[in-house]
Amino acid sequence: MNAPVTPGLPAFVPPRRVLMGPGPSDVHPRVLAAMAQPTIGHLDPAFIGLMDTIKGLLQQTFRTSNTLTMPISGPGSAGMEACFANLLEPGDTIIVCDNGVFGGRMRAMSERLGAKVITVQDPWGRAVDPQKVEDALKAHPEASVLAFVHAETSTGALSDARTLAELARSHHTLSLVDAVTSLGGSQLEMDAWGIDAIYSGTQKCLSCPPGLSPVSFGPRAVEKLRARSTPVRSWFMDFGLVINYWGEGAKRAYHHTAPVNALYGLHEALVLLHEEGLECSWARHRDHHLSLARGLEALGLSYLVPEGERLPQLNAVRLPAGVDEERLRRRLLEEHDLEIGAGLGEYAGRIWRIGLMGQSCTSRHVALCLDALGKVLQR
Amino acid sequence: MNAPVTPGLPAFVPPRRVLMGPGPSDVHPRVLAAMAQPTIGHLDPAFIGLMDTIKGLLQQTFRTSNTLTMPISGPGSAGMEACFANLLEPGDTIIVCDNGVFGGRMRAMSERLGAKVITVQDPWGRAVDPQKVEDALKAHPEASVLAFVHAETSTGALSDARTLAELARSHHTLSLVDAVTSLGGSQLEMDAWGIDAIYSGTQKCLSCPPGLSPVSFGPRAVEKLRARSTPVRSWFMDFGLVINYWGEGAKRAYHHTAPVNALYGLHEALVLLHEEGLECSWARHRDHHLSLARGLEALGLSYLVPEGERLPQLNAVRLPAGVDEERLRRRLLEEHDLEIGAGLGEYAGRIWRIGLMGQSCTSRHVALCLDALGKVLQR
Repeated sequence: MNAPVTPGLPAFVPPRRVLMGPGPSDVHPRVLAAMAQPTIGHLDPAFIGLMDTIKGLLQQTFRTSNTLTMPISGPGSAGMEACFANLLEPGDTIIVCDNGVFGGRMRAMSERLGAKVITVQDPWGRAVDPQKVEDALKAHPEASVLAFVHAETSTGALSDARTLAELARSHHTLSLVDAVTSLGGSQLEMDAWGIDAIYSGTQKCLSCPPGLSPVSFGPRAVEKLRARSTPVRSWFMDFGLVINYWGEGAKRAYHHTAPVNALYGLHEALVLLHEEGLECSWARHRDHHLSLARGLEALGLSYLVPEGERLPQLNAVRLPAGVDEERLRRRLLEEHDLEIGAGLGEYAGRIWRIGLMGQSCTSRHVALCLDALGKVLQR
Repeated sequence: MNAPVTPGLPAFVPPRRVLMGPGPSDVHPRVLAAMAQPTIGHLDPAFIGLMDTIKGLLQQTFRTSNTLTMPISGPGSAGMEACFANLLEPGDTIIVCDNGVFGGRMRAMSERLGAKVITVQDPWGRAVDPQKVEDALKAHPEASVLAFVHAETSTGALSDARTLAELARSHHTLSLVDAVTSLGGSQLEMDAWGIDAIYSGTQKCLSCPPGLSPVSFGPRAVEKLRARSTPVRSWFMDFGLVINYWGEGAKRAYHHTAPVNALYGLHEALVLLHEEGLECSWARHRDHHLSLARGLEALGLSYLVPEGERLPQLNAVRLPAGVDEERLRRRLLEEHDLEIGAGLGEYAGRIWRIGLMGQSCTSRHVALCLDALGKVLQR
């Protein structure tokens, strides 16, 4: 045999960071330890049992009894596209509420799937305006889906998911909700609010590493899926196939190989969340947000989003004039091991996005962030 | 605040298994430990550095200098679909070699993408016949892609990737190769053999947990991608967008949030592989396969695949007449903690699939498997 090709490659040892950007958030040591347990087979009876437990915990977290509730084997944008790909057929009309990066992404995905897109535009930094949505629903009775972002991570705006979902229902249109950043951090009631389809991510308020996307389809969304006249364009994302693996009963058919260790982590993160209690977690996010907001304002930083529309777990603040934000963020990282987020799109270079998500939402995080920001802003 | 909703949910502790099925394979403790390191941001400079290292290691593993070499943030079937979705446009003609489950999946994906599929059929359990492929290439000069599975995990047949890729090239057709089970376990030379596009998985001979899919596109595949007249149907899988994140240089644009901890694991698994040496790993797979084969034949089990077409890392053997295979596999799992694979499709209930992949390819695994099989077959 040959000598080793590349002897002595160094191991990767990540720096210790405090994660207060737009996600990922800090991961609890129990979740990291769970992920490091030995891998077992994706069809092992013990793993099938874990899948059932995860489904039940996700149902509790979404507040739904939907059978089609499962984590997609990919990051949030994979779960997002999976929902659009399953709900939309070429020629369908969809109303998309666009008030940030993720609304724009909804439009892009819908167009690629061959749907006709009606856009309800709101300014970046504002919640979706229900009146505009109602007008669009009235003007487009042919629309089969209304899609909106509950918690817009690019701007920190929280929209009124309950009102928007009710509007959709009263116009016989399905509601599809992006709950990537809201799940676990803000009140969300899938069944009580009549939401038909939803997706989320694991690296925000659930505080898992990125890589999984919990989704849920209610009865009306499943009916639309069953009534399709064209196959879902994506084999990997076709819920009609995925459900053979994630469905009911002990007999599961192989579809794809599930990310076993990532699911160990998601399970432990959901256990942590429900040990605390979902409502306690919502309250914790609100409380620490209020305390961070007071501190940020004392530093002279003002919020992009008006009070009343602010997302507790993502605080977007305007930068002081003349600040080299990239240099300051580098200093935060290098001198304080603190990660916060930059602005995106039209707000690149103009705002910071400070996350208070899941395990990164504690009084220690608030204090550390305010201290570090104070130091670098002072120069 | 409320009392905890669900107090005292138990942690999940997986059983200790020996993984000798069709994947996942046993994961090295160093890989598990790497994955349990604290999460950092997907745009952290330290993480960008890790991404570059991973790209370099994947290039070494595929034996290619292709710039577009990266792990897709999803399991093997996501990487598979990503390759088809990027290479094919509606109306394109593709020649698909079908000699098992994954050839069939290639056809299904191509059809959903609107391509015209020409099938080269070979019996399950046999390698792809190059003569049939040459005939199909001659009969269909309009075909833009030839797709085949290097190592068919459903049957244990190894096809001659070098000859098939050369045939494609001589007919000005792109070759797209499924290397999910071959990468790291069997000789594979992307550049020397002239392969244009390739995908793999992490849970076979790389011995990572499932969840990532290394892919590589050569210059001719990139040219086809650039010359598309229609957008890639999938936003999530569009290499033209993904490459803004996985591309060259220090400046990376956010596309989706990469599965940070899974990538820690992939890095460590690639380090382990290159510490051993790729050619040593190929030799190890061949040697232990020969020793397992002798033992299986001594137990009266015969191979599905004729000698010369056998895949060392996946040993498919016919079951003795009258055996209740499901019961025996359950006994292997319960009494010996040993996972082996069942047959799929027409071979369900008729064969077993015994994996010798990556960290599950040692003399200890061969001995343990033969001992356990001997015991349960004896009753």
